[in-house]
Amino acid sequence: MAGAALRVAGRQLSQHSGSGVPILLRQMFEPKSCTYTYLLGDRESREAILIDPVLETAPRDAQLVKELGLRLLYAVNTHCHADHITGSGLLRSLLPGCQSVISRLSGAQADLHIEDGDSIHFGRFKASLLLIYSPLSFPFPGCAKTLYHSVHEKIFTLPGDCLIYPAHDYRGLTVSTVEEERTLNPRLTLSCEEFVKVMDNLNLPKPQQIDFAVPANMRCGIQTPPS
Amino acid sequence: MAGAALRVAGRQLSQHSGSGVPILLRQMFEPKSCTYTYLLGDRESREAILIDPVLETAPRDAQLVKELGLRLLYAVNTHCHADHITGSGLLRSLLPGCQSVISRLSGAQADLHIEDGDSIHFGRFKASLLLIYSPLSFPFPGCAKTLYHSVHEKIFTLPGDCLIYPAHDYRGLTVSTVEEERTLNPRLTLSCEEFVKVMDNLNLPKPQQIDFAVPANMRCGIQTPPS
Ligand SMILES: [Fe+2]
Ligand SMILES: [Fe+2]
Repeated sequence: MAGAALRVAGRQLSQHSGSGVPILLRQMFEPKSCTYTYLLGDRESREAILIDPVLETAPRDAQLVKELGLRLLYAVNTHCHADHITGSGLLRSLLPGCQSVISRLSGAQADLHIEDGDSIHFGRFKASLLLIYSPLSFPFPGCAKTLYHSVHEKIFTLPGDCLIYPAHDYRGLTVSTVEEERTLNPRLTLSCEEFVKVMDNLNLPKPQQIDFAVPANMRCGIQTPPS
Repeated sequence: MAGAALRVAGRQLSQHSGSGVPILLRQMFEPKSCTYTYLLGDRESREAILIDPVLETAPRDAQLVKELGLRLLYAVNTHCHADHITGSGLLRSLLPGCQSVISRLSGAQADLHIEDGDSIHFGRFKASLLLIYSPLSFPFPGCAKTLYHSVHEKIFTLPGDCLIYPAHDYRGLTVSTVEEERTLNPRLTLSCEEFVKVMDNLNLPKPQQIDFAVPANMRCGIQTPPS
């Protein structure tokens, strides 16, 4: 299975907000699955996208989109999540005109499928898909190696001060940089061989919500919240 | 009882990070009390301050300070917290040279006491104390009115695009602006009279940790974590 990162034109995204800056960025947290959802908007055209919305917090996200006077074009999933149900289905009904987006490789349903290197546009900005082989694919042999090279070639070759906003974080950190991950990440600073050994022996517990989250996410989440 | 906000020179703080920007800002989350801790640093001199550290996450904060090659000058509490034990005491022992700071009006112990309008300096930056009467003082009569005027006069008179980073947020939002609070905050957009009525009838449950948090925080948290 493959995950992805979205890359948004470097310079602007290093500026968190302030109306003098053309791009608007809001990071939001969902505590049950420790998922970060991101709202990105063009202050001029008011077109916006949401990245990795969660079902439970989709009403909050829709409210913020309305309060900020934005028009949501896309609700994007960076991967078919195993740890929560996506909010993209609910957002499509809360904010008519919004389309769900996911990578074609995920095999999940969506209004729009994109491939590695494809971009989606909102106002003067574009977000490009960087396909990365994700840990979800373990324990299939060979995947850790692919992940290692994927991150080293696609992420660590970006400028050192490029900001990395996480999809999840369990320590309460909200942002990092390419430079920090390249020099400090306890796993990614290992050699490829050592990395593969660590990843193949993680023995992680099965994600709590995987049995209902993955089937639901293959259909773009659900249209109405569970009763 | 009084709370406070720290104001840091407007323009720079609207830029979240990126090594081209002279100030470094990191927002971190503590999930039990939904507290946000902030690390602010001068990229050149490497001098830094921490705002509202929490006991449980103080080791994480100390690690980040070290990893980023910063020198922590101050661990600041914006108020004598009722909902968590401050990490300032532990940080003083984890990072020798760090001083604890709180407003004199709080009555709490600290290495350094500051007053309304006072500033602390780190590298080329300064953070100034804006004293605000906080909801902690309820149900004492007259406090809601003082809080209302305090926020309207000290916060809402700042430029509309000035970013407001919360001390707590229970909806998972991480940032807002003066303009948004002025026009959208459900309580602060009320008239002063209506606001006082709402606040005097909140009947909030007593904060879970108040009985041990407040006495501990009066002594700058504790020096070693509870066993
Ligand atoms: Fe996920
Ligand atoms: Fe607090």
